[in-house]
Amino acid sequence: MHTFYTNETDYRLVEQLIFEWARRIDENRVEEIADLLVPNGRYTVQSRFNLDRNLPHCSIDCHNTAQLRDRILSMRIANIYERHHYRHMISGIQILKKENNLLEVVSNFSIIRTMELDGQIQIIFTGQARDEISIDQQTILFTKRHLVFDSRAIETLLVIPI
Amino acid sequence: MHTFYTNETDYRLVEQLIFEWARRIDENRVEEIADLLVPNGRYTVQSRFNLDRNLPHCSIDCHNTAQLRDRILSMRIANIYERHHYRHMISGIQILKKENNLLEVVSNFSIIRTMELDGQIQIIFTGQARDEISIDQQTILFTKRHLVFDSRAIETLLVIPI
Amino acid sequence: MHTFYTNETDYRLVEQLIFEWARRIDENRVEEIADLLVPNGRYTVQSRFNLDRNLPHCSIDCHNTAQLRDRILSMRIANIYERHHYRHMISGIQILKKENNLLEVVSNFSIIRTMELDGQIQIIFTGQARDEISIDQQTILFTKRHLVFDSRAIETLLVIPI
Repeated sequence: MHTFYTNETDYRLVEQLIFEWARRIDENRVEEIADLLVPNGRYTVQSRFNLDRNLPHCSIDCHNTAQLRDRILSMRIANIYERHHYRHMISGIQILKKENNLLEVVSNFSIIRTMELDGQIQIIFTGQARDEISIDQQTILFTKRHLVFDSRAIETLLVIPI
Repeated sequence: MHTFYTNETDYRLVEQLIFEWARRIDENRVEEIADLLVPNGRYTVQSRFNLDRNLPHCSIDCHNTAQLRDRILSMRIANIYERHHYRHMISGIQILKKENNLLEVVSNFSIIRTMELDGQIQIIFTGQARDEISIDQQTILFTKRHLVFDSRAIETLLVIPI
Repeated sequence: MHTFYTNETDYRLVEQLIFEWARRIDENRVEEIADLLVPNGRYTVQSRFNLDRNLPHCSIDCHNTAQLRDRILSMRIANIYERHHYRHMISGIQILKKENNLLEVVSNFSIIRTMELDGQIQIIFTGQARDEISIDQQTILFTKRHLVFDSRAIETLLVIPI
């Protein structure tokens, strides 16, 4: 018989942390996602194809928030791209384990992109988020975000972090 | 450090109210969404493009439930359109504030349309719902629904309210 | 005035059961969904078009877990198809009724398929899950899963159960 983790407070906080990350991106406040990761936290975007074969290549791999902030800054000032918005849909949040105030959490995501010019709507990413989250009575923060997307091919346009 | 609203009862009721609205539409009982809004409640559908530029135009703007019922009635008896179904996907429900039994709530939505004739499946809307919800021990109802969709262009076919 | 079911423990367990079913499929552990259904449970996939007209045809109709396991086995060893992944998005979980430890539950689903070869991303199903779930202090399991998809036409490729 399968048993599920059911601490209600932990579940609600975890859900809100994941939703908050998504909302900061969707509302074009991407800089602020770095505040939801511990300073030496890891943020990785990788294809399922590579992960399943133990291939090390990642599309994004930041080893701390400084790297993440740097990437976002380059998006703002260096990259040239057609204006577009993301809309995150999150589903299936499950806390798999808790040890020493560290939670192991999975969730499904799909990200729908709308181009500003012609209004074209397209799903550009689906995948599974594998998160490690630190929780105590004052604070809840990501210690690791490993976002594994289902497609082997990446969209030409991955400017904004997901 | 970011803190999250965590009243569990409020969260569950808010979520159920938002889901109930969606389900009444998806189950082709659109008339019944008006019962989830206070009589003088506001229901507005607007593009993000217009909202961001303070342009006043809205695709739908009902100032009370009578206007909303009227619009739905016209959909049933006056509009001619190809039969289709909506399917609402809701994600990222966050209670941002509570003051005097009024909750400020945001959520993400995507609406997928299936045409009855040829079965074509298409995302026609993604966006953010900005809701004001009145809650007390007996009742939970929308006082305002402001649905902001990401695309500047609207689909030819917005017959059914979203 | 509409009232909502709000037993928090029941809600969280129901949600986790539905998410767990989806995750086992998405993680390519389809065999394990049968463990979430009671041995004489029913698993049915049917079009909304047929259901609305009381037409009996279903795309899949398993009367017990043995039939479901058999179907999955044939998927693994007999069917030839292009490799692909599913990603389930679940939304709008609502407990409508509880009687004698049986819950009547609805939810919305959309299933996004990614082809392994060319990375093509497509919504192949949207619809409503109508579940009957048995719950007691030790165990939560599906007794019936009735998955009603919105499109009349089924995708050529329904190999993996949804």
